[in-house]
This record gives sequence, structure tokens and C-alpha cells, in this order.
Amino acid sequence: MAISANRILSDIEAIAGFSEVAPSIGYSRPTFTKAWAAARDYVIAEAEKVGCSARIDAAANVHLRPKSLPADNKVWLSGSHIDSVPTGGKYDGVMGIVAPLEVLRVHPNAPLELIIFAEEEGSTFNLGMLGSRAWAGTLSADEMAKLKNKAGVDPLTAGKPYGLDPTRFDVDKLAPDRYLGLIEIHAEQGISMWKNDIRVAVVTAINGRRQYAVTLTGQPNHAGSTKMVDRADALTCAAEIIVDLEDLARGLDMELDHTVITVGQLTVKPNAINVIPGEASFTIDFRARSGTMLEKGEERIKAVIAEATGRRNVAAKLVATESLPAEPLDHSICDRLRRAAKKLGVAKFPDVASGALHDSAILAPLLPTAMLFVASEDGISHNPAEFSRIEDIALATEILAAVVTEGA
Amino acid sequence: MAISANRILSDIEAIAGFSEVAPSIGYSRPTFTKAWAAARDYVIAEAEKVGCSARIDAAANVHLRPKSLPADNKVWLSGSHIDSVPTGGKYDGVMGIVAPLEVLRVHPNAPLELIIFAEEEGSTFNLGMLGSRAWAGTLSADEMAKLKNKAGVDPLTAGKPYGLDPTRFDVDKLAPDRYLGLIEIHAEQGISMWKNDIRVAVVTAINGRRQYAVTLTGQPNHAGSTKMVDRADALTCAAEIIVDLEDLARGLDMELDHTVITVGQLTVKPNAINVIPGEASFTIDFRARSGTMLEKGEERIKAVIAEATGRRNVAAKLVATESLPAEPLDHSICDRLRRAAKKLGVAKFPDVASGALHDSAILAPLLPTAMLFVASEDGISHNPAEFSRIEDIALATEILAAVVTEGA
Repeated sequence: MAISANRILSDIEAIAGFSEVAPSIGYSRPTFTKAWAAARDYVIAEAEKVGCSARIDAAANVHLRPKSLPADNKVWLSGSHIDSVPTGGKYDGVMGIVAPLEVLRVHPNAPLELIIFAEEEGSTFNLGMLGSRAWAGTLSADEMAKLKNKAGVDPLTAGKPYGLDPTRFDVDKLAPDRYLGLIEIHAEQGISMWKNDIRVAVVTAINGRRQYAVTLTGQPNHAGSTKMVDRADALTCAAEIIVDLEDLARGLDMELDHTVITVGQLTVKPNAINVIPGEASFTIDFRARSGTMLEKGEERIKAVIAEATGRRNVAAKLVATESLPAEPLDHSICDRLRRAAKKLGVAKFPDVASGALHDSAILAPLLPTAMLFVASEDGISHNPAEFSRIEDIALATEILAAVVTEGA
Repeated sequence: MAISANRILSDIEAIAGFSEVAPSIGYSRPTFTKAWAAARDYVIAEAEKVGCSARIDAAANVHLRPKSLPADNKVWLSGSHIDSVPTGGKYDGVMGIVAPLEVLRVHPNAPLELIIFAEEEGSTFNLGMLGSRAWAGTLSADEMAKLKNKAGVDPLTAGKPYGLDPTRFDVDKLAPDRYLGLIEIHAEQGISMWKNDIRVAVVTAINGRRQYAVTLTGQPNHAGSTKMVDRADALTCAAEIIVDLEDLARGLDMELDHTVITVGQLTVKPNAINVIPGEASFTIDFRARSGTMLEKGEERIKAVIAEATGRRNVAAKLVATESLPAEPLDHSICDRLRRAAKKLGVAKFPDVASGALHDSAILAPLLPTAMLFVASEDGISHNPAEFSRIEDIALATEILAAVVTEGA
């Protein structure tokens, strides 16, 4: 029996059916809801059909593993998340679950454990990758208790009916020596691969992320009677910085490297049509694939701000609000994936860096980890229009199958 | 008796005493309030002491004119407004009232009518220069009825106790042939004169103003996984436009010309730290001294927007929200003011354009009109810290006195 694109697509469609809203609006499976649990149950039932046993760990992640394997047999771990953003697409996360499910169908004795991570998106409790963080031991029950969903309920309470059990966090933590490594298949969520005709790619690093909050203070003044040369316009200063940051990011970026700088939020005071802005506050989101690049980038970001504000007589306050390190992925697994792709005759299989964060970023420091990206049509993501070709997902599944059955 | 800086200062301090808030916070005299009416009554009483009679026109403007003058005697008109922005300063508007008041004290038979315009600032009913517009016949009772203050009251209702009477708007309209011309003294509200050591200046034009609302639509996308080259970032596009508009304004501007472009309002959607902005909306306020300059500037503003959006694959919608023509002021009155200044030995008396709008802009098309500007310390305006030197105000008053008594 061979990997079947049809079966994979049928799994994707079945999971898409578990949604809080109609398909015309999108696919919504917030973590710890009925729709989310039903999707999880579907995958459990499908895996059990081919001889797997299910276990839910203390962090509410699902583990599906062939019963035929001895308990002390080291296995590959492969999986992703089944929760979605509100009105998301069919593929984000899901393809990373149905791929190892199909591998288990075709190779029911493979040393492979399918994992469904709980709450990756972060849209429910305002923090992403809860399941992998708790399992990895980087998020405590106390920290989790502080998070709240829109109804004001924390994940400990919301997750209890679904297996979340903070009293067992410690004893049920990830034991890295039980695994050969983690391979996560995920949609790229960017346009690069699609437009460069790349169906699948090996992810050799997950970008680190630094975020900043910047406040510029100039001089609010009459828009009519204050000459251009006499202004200390906080918004124009911010505008110059935003344009310079774009240049900086383009300069730091290289093909498929996903070094990016984004100013996503900006507010102006007093924000009146006839008053020169006295204050402009904005955020900077900066992502790069290495610590060196993050350091270098931060230095240049600060220089850009100092240069523009200094020349314009505007005061700047920069606060670093987040710093997540870049995670290089495992060379040896990446090599295995490359060899498998070559054997399968994959024409293009470039190295890419992941701009987005994934559960893999949480586990990579503890476990040999790699990822496979599948092209996303036009880069559209977190949107019902999200699309990946089923033949590309099947190809990634074949590469995964080749690696996890290599020694078999 | 000569023009007295002390008396002028004492008038300014007396009027500052009529405020809704404590001096530590600022000076607040919204139109049609007790504080505003008390300030108006003070000026009326002071003018009556030196033989003037008071008349309140249908638009609630106060006219103070020597009783000694025959009814058909053509007179100069001089005045300004006594209402203030919330927590404003002592000088804006007020100096233009106390100056002709002092002239009437020293020259009680001068052919001079002091006018106190009702509601110039526009902060009460969201439209400036109500009193002059209604008197000039450019604002109808119906239009006025649509305006509302914060309490939801229209100016017709709010102004009734203070003399506003829309049934008499028509019969009580400005009769230009009763006047020799209008001379308004006002603070510059900009820094140019102060920093160039210019105490007083003759305003030869009031800038026209065009305002626009611009909406840019790009592609909201994942800040991590969307490469720089694949973005259609509405905010970065707006930022480039804002920087280009600043260059454009600096290019169009000449010394003391006050050609200015301001982006005062800007909002971003979805305005999230990790999402590339899909929409950026902003306003443009553009002021220049001539119709030609306004036309040329508008053309270039449109070109700047077209260039940036075209290159960035961002859609732009531009709506013109206001167009007020530039008002050249009266050559002959400007000449009279120059001659008077020369006679008084004023070292520097340059021509300037007014960047801000004033009641003079409303009356200039109907009546020979000119303005005198007095330097504002550091250009600070609409702020309790607003300051003009009393000796400069007195100098402007002497120039005014010289012109209005010239034929006497």
C-alpha cells in the first residue's frame, strides 16, 4: 500500500467539517472546544483503526503510537496542531497531523508517534504553543493560570475536560531519550515557495523574534502657522524610520531567509487633521534566522531611530518587549530529509528558514528537530482561502515516510 | 496721550481673568459661555468709557464706535476674536481687540469701529469663524442649525442669549461701503518671526487650505512568514508618502511663505504587532498662498501618492474634504501699514503670509483687508505658555493708530 493523496485529502476534509462556523465563513477550532475535541477524536479513531494506542499527556497533547512497538522502542515524533485561528483555513496545522496519520496507515509498525499539540495558534489565550511549552517544561501551571480566554477562563480550567492536568506536568514531561527526533510538516504561510515553483522545502532554522515598542515625542503645533523647517513632527519622523527599517530589512534579507521587519501598530497624538503630531507610538517586529543576525539587526534598528530622531529634534523611547532566540534545526535530520527527497526525485528541495513560529521551535532545544514546508498558494494563511496542493502534501508525506522507515 | 503698553497689558490680564479654568491650566473662553460674555462685556464697558456706543449684530459680533462720529461716516474696522480654544493662551485673538480699544482711548474721535467676532476658533461647534461668516453672508441659519457643541446644542440656540438672531441675518449683513477697510492684529502663531527677530510684520496673503482624506489598501499578512519583497504593506506605503510630502512642502516653501503640508491623522488596520498593515488611512492638510500654488501642490500630492502606491501594489483612494481659496490682502492698506511702520522707525517689517485662517480671510473678498502679525515666542500657540512681548503688541497698535488717524 502506498501513500494516498486521496486519503490525506479525505482526512483534511473530515477535519474541516469540525468547525464552529460554516465553511463559507471559514474554519474555526479554538482549543478546548467541542469542534476542536471532535477533530482530535477523529484522528484518534483513524489511528486506532490501524493499530495505534492513544495517550493524552498532562499538557493535553495527544500521542498515537503503534501498539506493536515495544514500550522502550525509540520512535520518531511527527505532528502539529489541530486548533485554528478564528475563521482560518483547512491546512494550517492539519496537514502536519494527517501526514504522519497516513504514514501510520501505510507503515503500521513504523517507529513513529503522531502528536497533536494543544493550542498552537495563541488566539485563544493570547499565548501560542501552550501544549508544546507545557510538555517541554517551559511553561508552568502558575504561568498558565494567568492566561485567560475571552470568557475570562484560564487554560487549566478550560483544558481539564480534555486531559490537561497541571499536577502531572512534572512527571509527564517530554523525555527526549524516548525519541529519535521530531519532524513537523507545515504550510509555509508565505508566498516564496509558491511563486518560485517549490513544492516542498526543508526548514533549517526557525527565525528568532525580537519585538519593540517605540514612542517618539516631538512638538504638537498649528498645522497652518508652523513652517516646515520649524517642526518637530513625531509622525513624519516615524514615517522616515518605517521607510528606513524596510530598507534595512531588505538589506539584511537574502533569498528564502525571511529576515523581516514589520511595523504593525502605529498610533498618533493628538491625531487631528490640523495639528502637527506631537507623539507617534509604534511597534517593531523583527525576525531573523540567527542570534548574530538578531544582534546586528537590533543594533541597526537602534541606529536608524537615533539618526532620524536626532536630526529631527524628536525624542525616542525604545522598549524591548520580547526576545525569542533563533532555533537552528537539526543538521542530521535535515540531511535525512534531503536524501529522501533526492531518492523520490524531488526537483527543487531548497533550505528555507521559517519566519513564523511553530511547536518545533519550542522542542528544538530539547530534541533533534526539523521541519518540512509545503507551498501555500499566494502565501495566503489564517484565512479560509488558504490552499496547498494535495500532491505537494502527499510528497511531503512520502519524504516523512522514507525517513521514519529508513532503518526498518 | 500716547499708546500705552501698560494699559494694553492690563486689558490682556483683565480678559485673561475671564476663564472657565484656573490660569495654571490655561485660559478657556468657549463662545456663548459666561466667561466669554464677561470678557466681551469688559471690552464694551472700556470702550463706552471713552465715548463709544455698542451694537451687537445679528451674528452676535460686537461693534464699538465713537458716538461722536456721524452715522454715515466711513470708518476703519479693526478687531479679532475673544473666544479661545480650551486651555489656550492670553494673546490669541485678544491682542487684536485690545489694540483698537487702546487706539480708541487715545483717539476717541478716530474713524474706527472695534469689532469682536463671535466664535473664531471652531473648537466649540467644529467650524471656525462663525461670526464673520454669518456677518459676511457665507453661512446661513440652516447651515448653522446643523452644527452642534459637545452638549448637542446648535449655535443658534446657544447664541440666542448673546444676541444671535438668524431672522435678522439678511438685513444686518455687512455693508462694505460703510467701511474704509479692515485691519486685524493677530499673533503669528508660528516661530518664524520670533527666531528672525521680527517684532511685527504685514500679512499680504492668507494661505488657502486644501484638505484630503487618503485610504491605502494593501494586503494584511503574517509578519513572520511574508518576505519583504512579497509585501503590500499599507503603512510603509503611507510612510513613504508622508516623507515625500514633507520633501514636497519644503520644496514648495520659501522664506516666510508658510507653504505647508501636514499629515495630522493616521490610523492603521488591523493594527496588530505581528500583522502587516492591510490598511492605512490618513489626512493631508495643505496650505499655500496662491491658487496657482494650491493647484500645483495638489497635482504633486497626487503624483506622490500615485508613484508610491503604484510601485508598491497598494490601492489608493483620495477624497478632497475641503478647499478654501488663498486670500491676497489689500495692496493699498498694506502700503499704508508699511509707510506707518517706516515713520515709526520699525527696523524690520517684512511681508508674510498667514498660514492660519482668521476672520480676515472671510471678510477679505468683500472688504479691503490687511493684517498685522506680532511675533509669538517660540511659535507656541493654543497653549497657556503662549507669549508675545507687550512692546511688540504696542508697536502694532501704534501702526494701527497711525493708519486709522492718517486723514484725521
